[in-house]
Amino acid sequence: MLSKAQIKRISSYKESKYRNQDKVFVVEGVKVVNELLNSSYEIETICALKQWLDDNSKRINNKANNIIEVNEDELKKISSFSTPNQVLAVVKTPLPREVVSKDKLVIALDQINDPGNLGTIIRIAHWFGIEDIICSENTVDQYNPKTIQSTMGSLFRVNVSYHNLKSYLQNLPEDYPIYGTIVENGENIYEKQVQKQGIIIIGSESHGISDEIIPLINNPITIPNFSINQRAESLNASIATGIIVSEFKRRG
Amino acid sequence: MLSKAQIKRISSYKESKYRNQDKVFVVEGVKVVNELLNSSYEIETICALKQWLDDNSKRINNKANNIIEVNEDELKKISSFSTPNQVLAVVKTPLPREVVSKDKLVIALDQINDPGNLGTIIRIAHWFGIEDIICSENTVDQYNPKTIQSTMGSLFRVNVSYHNLKSYLQNLPEDYPIYGTIVENGENIYEKQVQKQGIIIIGSESHGISDEIIPLINNPITIPNFSINQRAESLNASIATGIIVSEFKRRG
Repeated sequence: MLSKAQIKRISSYKESKYRNQDKVFVVEGVKVVNELLNSSYEIETICALKQWLDDNSKRINNKANNIIEVNEDELKKISSFSTPNQVLAVVKTPLPREVVSKDKLVIALDQINDPGNLGTIIRIAHWFGIEDIICSENTVDQYNPKTIQSTMGSLFRVNVSYHNLKSYLQNLPEDYPIYGTIVENGENIYEKQVQKQGIIIIGSESHGISDEIIPLINNPITIPNFSINQRAESLNASIATGIIVSEFKRRG
Repeated sequence: MLSKAQIKRISSYKESKYRNQDKVFVVEGVKVVNELLNSSYEIETICALKQWLDDNSKRINNKANNIIEVNEDELKKISSFSTPNQVLAVVKTPLPREVVSKDKLVIALDQINDPGNLGTIIRIAHWFGIEDIICSENTVDQYNPKTIQSTMGSLFRVNVSYHNLKSYLQNLPEDYPIYGTIVENGENIYEKQVQKQGIIIIGSESHGISDEIIPLINNPITIPNFSINQRAESLNASIATGIIVSEFKRRG
């Protein structure tokens, strides 16, 4: 059972302001909490229905500081979703980490606003063995509830960090490959020689890559448009990411 | 200005039951309505803010049977979105069309429930010049408001039709290539020889391709998993579609 104060506190974490203040975020649902329990993230509180607690009692032992049995009404009050799924966990936000894989492929996101797109891109990175995603400071929060849901648990396997993207790129060695998806004048990704090391910059669908970032791209790329009369205007940002990363990976 | 009856009628089209009954669907926002006006779809009613009507008066002349100026409150009442965007159109549902491109690539969707995924897949088809998408009868409605929004207007450029997928596949010529994404025992899509003609079946993330459809696949394919210890479980259905279609198209 939850007190009114607990309901108020956990509900407040739907907003980044309160998440940042208390240095926590919220994970929901059987699938994503399952991935959380398999990770090294520190869990502050688990709120779950009796059935889930019974089924998982051994696994959660020593894993969470507080374990609270809730009913469906209480779960609905603290959940971000219209149909909550058995369990919700409050998790301690880990300290920001350095980029760990500069000698491999890294994805950089420039102003991705849609939380679902960010989550899907984190999931793509996980699938393709990319360890780091660098986000511009105006990219949506990785701990947004919709982002977390779209990652399907991949959030705990990929290192997502926020930077001033321009400064970050300017501080890279001069010959470091910086790939950027440019609709016009990019080199056909199917034909381009690509390296195993480098940064792939993905811009937002509505704004593309920012004007201040474009001059820093030394390898402009594009996905060819096969639509009739080239009428299709763009691909969703996460679809473009999937196709480009696949192109890098298939060539080893 | 809208009457109460008009508000009630247009609002009801958020549900497929009422859309089917009146054989209409609803398109919203500047971008998608713009694509609608460039299409041959028949428009029943346009409800828009004064500014939008002033800006588009020449274009909408003779294009819609009813043109109604609304204020922001009225627009909010009939909109499916929390932040409506200037204009909403009620459109007559076209008659179901035959599959037009059996001699080319066709996408078939088996039980795709997520409206955003369906919309994103329609957008992928448009980008890659695929003219037909065949949906199983239990795939989400193409006229779901979230689907339409995710297509970004590509809905009007791709022929989406609903079929009993099993019967449809059984009635194809015996050597017609039926590609299906199977996680285990599929042939690596990067290495597989593919043809210019055929059907690519995409299953839902949660259930994969149905048991009754799997035996009909004569070309099982898979996207290799590069994750550390292969821990990543799956890709989003629309991401998998984007990567596979890209693989077919890059090889001409």
